[in-house]
Amino acid sequence: MTQIHEYYLKMAVDLALKNAEKGGRPFGAVLVKDDQVLATGVNEILATNDPTCHAELSAIRQASQKLQSPRLEGCVIYASGQPCPMCLSAMYLTGIQEAYFAYSNADGEPYGLSTAPIYSELQKPLDQQKIQIRYMPLEQNASAHLYKQWKQISK
Amino acid sequence: MTQIHEYYLKMAVDLALKNAEKGGRPFGAVLVKDDQVLATGVNEILATNDPTCHAELSAIRQASQKLQSPRLEGCVIYASGQPCPMCLSAMYLTGIQEAYFAYSNADGEPYGLSTAPIYSELQKPLDQQKIQIRYMPLEQNASAHLYKQWKQISK
Repeated sequence: MTQIHEYYLKMAVDLALKNAEKGGRPFGAVLVKDDQVLATGVNEILATNDPTCHAELSAIRQASQKLQSPRLEGCVIYASGQPCPMCLSAMYLTGIQEAYFAYSNADGEPYGLSTAPIYSELQKPLDQQKIQIRYMPLEQNASAHLYKQWKQISK
Repeated sequence: MTQIHEYYLKMAVDLALKNAEKGGRPFGAVLVKDDQVLATGVNEILATNDPTCHAELSAIRQASQKLQSPRLEGCVIYASGQPCPMCLSAMYLTGIQEAYFAYSNADGEPYGLSTAPIYSELQKPLDQQKIQIRYMPLEQNASAHLYKQWKQISK
């Protein structure tokens, strides 16, 4: 089993290296389902200016379009680098239950490629985070509660 | 200042409600820069099958294309619901430093709309998380270190 994981992980690292050779950032990902490659992704932030074009997020997006479903249970992600919290959260949101990476945040830190500081921020209470993020309930009567209205509409 | 925040926050909640009325999930976001609306987003997961189409992530993506930059310093996000860790991480990745939301995870919990459980998972060490996520360094000589190669290529 380890050999299979290494095979796909090497594929992800190769994608990352090829992306770097084209001027991109050194991140690649391979999304596998039923022992077949369903989608791949590389970091395309520099090419697209889209800050969400991380390798894993792009692979997840592509896989969802192929399966025509936002649910990716049974899929496995192989990522060259340790998934950042945006991408790991996307895995939780889609039901992905298995992931492997070849280079950790500690490996990336000397190169400015660690997202450990963002993980640290997310652990803090809102009022202690670097982003000033505030809960500001709007004054309104109880019947206007957004989620209550949604439940009524979507019945 | 509070009035301005309430104004944009109401706009985000209105977008969320309109999205719900169209059969979508009740989430909306407004991204503001220099007191002008730069981008808006609603949750389009059901319409697109793309699990990353959260309101805030879509607004961030759209703003980056308008500015032709992945950096969104000086932008403020107004979100109807408390940002999930995917979207909050995207804010950290883009340099957004200010955010407001009208409905908290606690408000959403009775309706199945809280992402607090994902925040909890992200706080745990990798080997204790629900997703089986494993660091698997590939055997290779030191000169093949992906990030080292990237540094050399991108000099």
